[in-house]
Amino acid sequence: MTREPADDRLAATLPPGVLRPVEDRYLDDPRGRYLGRGGLVAAPRTVEEVAAVVRACAAARVGIVPRGGGTGLVGGSVMPDGPAPLILSLERMAAVRAVWPAEDVLVAEAGLTLAAVQEAARAAGRMFPLALASQGTAQLGGVLAANAGGTAVLRWGNARALCLGIEAVLPDGSILHDLKRLRKDNTGYALRDLLIGAEGTLGIITAASLRLAPVPAGVATAMLAVPGPAEALQLLALAQGRLSGCVTAFELIAGQGLAFLAEVLPAIRQPLPGAPWSVLLELSLPQGLDPDAALEGLLADAMEAGLVTDGALAQTGAQAAEFWSLREHLPEANRRIGSISSHDISLPLSEIPRFLDDAGAMLAAMGDMRINAFGHLGDGNLHYNVFPAPGRRRDDYDALRPRIQEAVHAMVVAREGSFSAEHGVGRLKTADLARWGDPARLAAMRAIKAALDPPGIMNPGAVLG
Amino acid sequence: MTREPADDRLAATLPPGVLRPVEDRYLDDPRGRYLGRGGLVAAPRTVEEVAAVVRACAAARVGIVPRGGGTGLVGGSVMPDGPAPLILSLERMAAVRAVWPAEDVLVAEAGLTLAAVQEAARAAGRMFPLALASQGTAQLGGVLAANAGGTAVLRWGNARALCLGIEAVLPDGSILHDLKRLRKDNTGYALRDLLIGAEGTLGIITAASLRLAPVPAGVATAMLAVPGPAEALQLLALAQGRLSGCVTAFELIAGQGLAFLAEVLPAIRQPLPGAPWSVLLELSLPQGLDPDAALEGLLADAMEAGLVTDGALAQTGAQAAEFWSLREHLPEANRRIGSISSHDISLPLSEIPRFLDDAGAMLAAMGDMRINAFGHLGDGNLHYNVFPAPGRRRDDYDALRPRIQEAVHAMVVAREGSFSAEHGVGRLKTADLARWGDPARLAAMRAIKAALDPPGIMNPGAVLG
Repeated sequence: MTREPADDRLAATLPPGVLRPVEDRYLDDPRGRYLGRGGLVAAPRTVEEVAAVVRACAAARVGIVPRGGGTGLVGGSVMPDGPAPLILSLERMAAVRAVWPAEDVLVAEAGLTLAAVQEAARAAGRMFPLALASQGTAQLGGVLAANAGGTAVLRWGNARALCLGIEAVLPDGSILHDLKRLRKDNTGYALRDLLIGAEGTLGIITAASLRLAPVPAGVATAMLAVPGPAEALQLLALAQGRLSGCVTAFELIAGQGLAFLAEVLPAIRQPLPGAPWSVLLELSLPQGLDPDAALEGLLADAMEAGLVTDGALAQTGAQAAEFWSLREHLPEANRRIGSISSHDISLPLSEIPRFLDDAGAMLAAMGDMRINAFGHLGDGNLHYNVFPAPGRRRDDYDALRPRIQEAVHAMVVAREGSFSAEHGVGRLKTADLARWGDPARLAAMRAIKAALDPPGIMNPGAVLG
Repeated sequence: MTREPADDRLAATLPPGVLRPVEDRYLDDPRGRYLGRGGLVAAPRTVEEVAAVVRACAAARVGIVPRGGGTGLVGGSVMPDGPAPLILSLERMAAVRAVWPAEDVLVAEAGLTLAAVQEAARAAGRMFPLALASQGTAQLGGVLAANAGGTAVLRWGNARALCLGIEAVLPDGSILHDLKRLRKDNTGYALRDLLIGAEGTLGIITAASLRLAPVPAGVATAMLAVPGPAEALQLLALAQGRLSGCVTAFELIAGQGLAFLAEVLPAIRQPLPGAPWSVLLELSLPQGLDPDAALEGLLADAMEAGLVTDGALAQTGAQAAEFWSLREHLPEANRRIGSISSHDISLPLSEIPRFLDDAGAMLAAMGDMRINAFGHLGDGNLHYNVFPAPGRRRDDYDALRPRIQEAVHAMVVAREGSFSAEHGVGRLKTADLARWGDPARLAAMRAIKAALDPPGIMNPGAVLG
């Protein structure tokens, strides 16, 4: 990272006490792609202070980079070039403002970690369904700015679907008071939905009113070996047909991912080692339906239909946690192996098996590589990661990397998929957006950005470039 | 309604064959509040023709009023004053473009009725969950433009939550191609969510990719007498705690509504006549859980806790349909009685019992009136309708009406509720929005409108006035 000479004139116009030392944690990029830059770090304590910081930056024409837990994977919270920005952290706005268990609503400030939000919900006898590998560090503000997904989207939707209202500071320094806890409110444009997922380019979310859910009466968790992705999708349809609303996770795991785990994280126990494809299935069941019976009924039909060849059913909560731990260590194993390129893609469900065949064949024609495709199959969202052949280094593929990225994204877009299913655009995929985005949509996005942020101070360079 | 002299210059620039006679059905307002006006009616057959019509109107600076089934209750599809608009009907764009049952996705054009969308889903062995009293007439375009709600929001969300992608014509005549059938796509701003609910002021939705759902394995339907709204909410919490994800409808019915039905629609059979408050409960259950057993288990606990005093459980599908018919005839009974004023409000769930007490007391102090409060309690959404005392006429209350509306909305807003939960703003509630809307939100809405529709041709006068 780079520390810039402090901007004393801007600093003098900020609310007293908001400045923090410019530490590495405000500048790091988790994948090490970018060297973050920052002249000042401000950590306001109230929404009014956030508004004052935004107004000061607007007056000084200094860009603002909002920074949550810094776990984003597309460079949305780092600014590697251009004039040094002010980095805005909401780490001191980390209160649970209120919980209404009877309404299934919790109001939290943006600086709270996702894990802390989940914990506050649990303490109230409820749950906040959104779940991510980085939840111990990711902050609510970033989770909403990125419209984060994770492992519970199949049942509960992404961050946007779990947010009833927001408080935010708009680029002109005005405060949006829309922290309603209503299920229905048709009084004008969906500004909340627009700010969620805008990655800090249209304003700063300072607090949110979140949907909670009852803790399910029973949970069943299983790792299931399946012949391939097509059978996994048939299993999903079978499960949804029998148990609509009860399938809360459906994660695909490739044999390559298990091999990577065995190689670099051998302490992770594998219930179905060597399975070419497996599914981590979670059912959340109502009272009156025995979780084991529901799971076994499903599996009997699935095995009969040839959709499942082997399975491990969690007998205890600890075993279920172990299955989830395997799933959640896949990214860490990938990191240790070292990918050539990684792709957060989504596809129409029925396109997935052919895509996996065709993309595999295409990459095999480009060179000797390994592929680990895994993730949220129930949402059509795969993390499609490409690795060096055994014994080779990722650097060997430097020349090939741009061609791989180009070819994978082109194939995804041709099949009406997305080149960024849940990670967002950030600074990493601005060129992809410009290239693959619908022209009318891009023009409307630019018009909205210019209308709400004429000087362009909010997270400059992110999303629209 | 008023027919205007045809605008021959504009007509000459439209695609050949799109003009239709200016019939009453394009000008009527279902509640008779507005006299619609229109110089031309265009019914294009393709999205390209829609774009050509929009470009022609932009060039001629003629306003466009998009018109679906004309069932909206807030005057969103009529223009009672100002220069005569072109009325745009998508009745000739009414195809089901594709169905992917295995993906639970259907792509339909905007001119299809909601009932036809439901039927197409059924024909594919699936269901489209959105359900409204006016579904036989309401068209998908209007349903999305209004972000319609209805009786299944509790489980499935409103129209916005059931839409994966849209095709639309923006105010500059460009075509937004965003008809993706993806569950996750974080590539930029939520333009789709912005157009949905914008009531035709930011563009014209011409087709949509919709989420379907599996038909549930079992359904249980009951009418339950409850002591009051507070107990109804406790019953809801009890049901959600036991059967999370399985409670698909939770409608509150006031004794006054039953009395109105008995008076003006005596053919409607009432399973619990005289109940001061009742709930229409629908459970959709997974395979393996007997619907009757699930319902009876819930009711045993609810009666034990004093939350339910009497109940009628549907034994057949025909009986369930009868219960729903009672619920769906409440608006018709209201119409026949003739309300002084009607309010489509939402409140935080826990505010509802006190609101009903306080609003009732407030209105009683203003005069002798009857109140029928009913609706989607599970969503915090009530239709709060005020009627003349027995033997008096609604005209007697003309002087009081504005004071009632003002007082009810003020009380709702003071309790962090909404003055338009599901009907939208249209032209009826523009003054409410200007008065009660958050200033920063209004300013941002105006900026977005000006950015996307500089000449202001899209549904002039709606939403922002």
